Amino acid sequence: MADYAIGVDLGGTNLRAAAITASGTMLEKVGAPTDLSTAETVIRDIVRAIESVRAKLREHRLVGVGIGVPGFIRIAEGLVVGSNNLVCLEGYPVRDRIEQALGAPVILENDANAAALGEKWMGAGRDVEDLVLLTLGTGIGGGIISKGRVLHGFVGMAGELGHLTVAPNGNPCGCGNTGCLEKHASATAIESMAKLLALGDDLTAKDVYDLAVAGNERARRVFESMGQALGVAIAMLINVFNFPLYLMSGGVLAAWDYFYPSLEAEVRRRSYTYRHTETRIEKARLGNEAGIYGAAYLPFQAQQAIFAS
Amino acid sequence: MADYAIGVDLGGTNLRAAAITASGTMLEKVGAPTDLSTAETVIRDIVRAIESVRAKLREHRLVGVGIGVPGFIRIAEGLVVGSNNLVCLEGYPVRDRIEQALGAPVILENDANAAALGEKWMGAGRDVEDLVLLTLGTGIGGGIISKGRVLHGFVGMAGELGHLTVAPNGNPCGCGNTGCLEKHASATAIESMAKLLALGDDLTAKDVYDLAVAGNERARRVFESMGQALGVAIAMLINVFNFPLYLMSGGVLAAWDYFYPSLEAEVRRRSYTYRHTETRIEKARLGNEAGIYGAAYLPFQAQQAIFAS
Repeated sequence: MADYAIGVDLGGTNLRAAAITASGTMLEKVGAPTDLSTAETVIRDIVRAIESVRAKLREHRLVGVGIGVPGFIRIAEGLVVGSNNLVCLEGYPVRDRIEQALGAPVILENDANAAALGEKWMGAGRDVEDLVLLTLGTGIGGGIISKGRVLHGFVGMAGELGHLTVAPNGNPCGCGNTGCLEKHASATAIESMAKLLALGDDLTAKDVYDLAVAGNERARRVFESMGQALGVAIAMLINVFNFPLYLMSGGVLAAWDYFYPSLEAEVRRRSYTYRHTETRIEKARLGNEAGIYGAAYLPFQAQQAIFAS
Repeated sequence: MADYAIGVDLGGTNLRAAAITASGTMLEKVGAPTDLSTAETVIRDIVRAIESVRAKLREHRLVGVGIGVPGFIRIAEGLVVGSNNLVCLEGYPVRDRIEQALGAPVILENDANAAALGEKWMGAGRDVEDLVLLTLGTGIGGGIISKGRVLHGFVGMAGELGHLTVAPNGNPCGCGNTGCLEKHASATAIESMAKLLALGDDLTAKDVYDLAVAGNERARRVFESMGQALGVAIAMLINVFNFPLYLMSGGVLAAWDYFYPSLEAEVRRRSYTYRHTETRIEKARLGNEAGIYGAAYLPFQAQQAIFAS
């Protein structure tokens, strides 16, 4: 018999759930589509996925469930405050309803925070206690791990690193700001820049990458610009945190060789701390699994905190 | 008999030392000029000031000494790595030499970090565990308090908030960056903007403030610009930390009414988190004493950590 936790990664179209032991062994894993019609259908799909994992592990003991959700979370209340992908969950008592259905403790967490914790536990951050993760996708998420734990701030909204201002009068953002990192360095930003450079309409970030690989100079300039924007942001994060490790994840990492040189040049110029310390800027290692690992680690951490107090 | 710690605030031209009890009562205080000829003369002046305080409190017990120093500190080694004002101390084993001379434990800390901790202990941050302080002077320093303690990063250089990029192609900074907050919002930046607006040569920040009070529109625009730059930075800090409290200190606070409106407007526009949480942006309360209180609190915190472990 082993203790295990279930980590859930709730995306905009599907969810994945896995049972993981305290030493990081994945025992079971399921994936399922998410019906976003109402909060009730989403909750039902989450509970079903968790129960299907649990049914296979009857001889083991479930410590708790962690759920990574894209959006702003109020940690203490277990609420999703705002989410572009899961609007139906806004203001709904997600944690309490799932706890009631399962009869097991549930912890909600922002998905990028969960991914950062997963990388710290079982990925690229295993050897450090402090790191920052940027998740590069259609938007940019952030997770900050300080002394081995997610930095939450007072309601749980810390780590909104996609909304660092990298160009004060830059592209407008849905958050109200102009020049947010995610409007200059996400996959969506890559596509938008490709269009501005007349590389073609409706190109995906992958198309732009393929053009860069084929030697297209304008496609390469897109990734240079993206790298510069990331560099401005990462230099600031280094100046703020002086952490040893800054990670990036997401499909866009395939283009690393095209954006990293301009990123690193920008960081080198803009951060005295980077130039004078052994600061690492690296690729995350767990890919899509990071969020599941981090979500599963949350109940174990909560247990440790109880034992420590 | 009471336990007390000595807090030292080491400036570029003088130093101040005070004996403070665990409950925050100041028992004794001295000030003295600092002879910056060599590291040895600085150390000698610090030790003398501490010994003069200690001599008056023979019936009490000295827990330890905290010293706030302007510059980059390597906490574990007790070294000043870089300091514009105290070049003679760079690379010198400051902590160990003072410990040897005193026979008492010594903790070195960056001066802005010490001020942030002082505000948390006895000032504007008494009711919170997490805050950020910006010290607005000839430069801009920063201190971050997370869970009641200074956030150090891995070598002790965290909180270099004067080097947040608020204008990627803005004014050049000695750190190698362009557009650092401290080149757009410090007292020096105010003087520089006054000159650019042809308000007059060699005006001090105080002169520019007096002109603003007298109704001079260009002087008022200087403070508006300064407030905007601060707003860009504080919005980012809110998005990163989601802390409940952001404090500012320094003589420039006299001009609060002239820079705060543009600061707040910028923060409101650039931070979703600010608009959706009860985030406070306020004046620090301890003035020049903040650093002394924070430095004195360090030995008490170290003691607590020993008891807790």
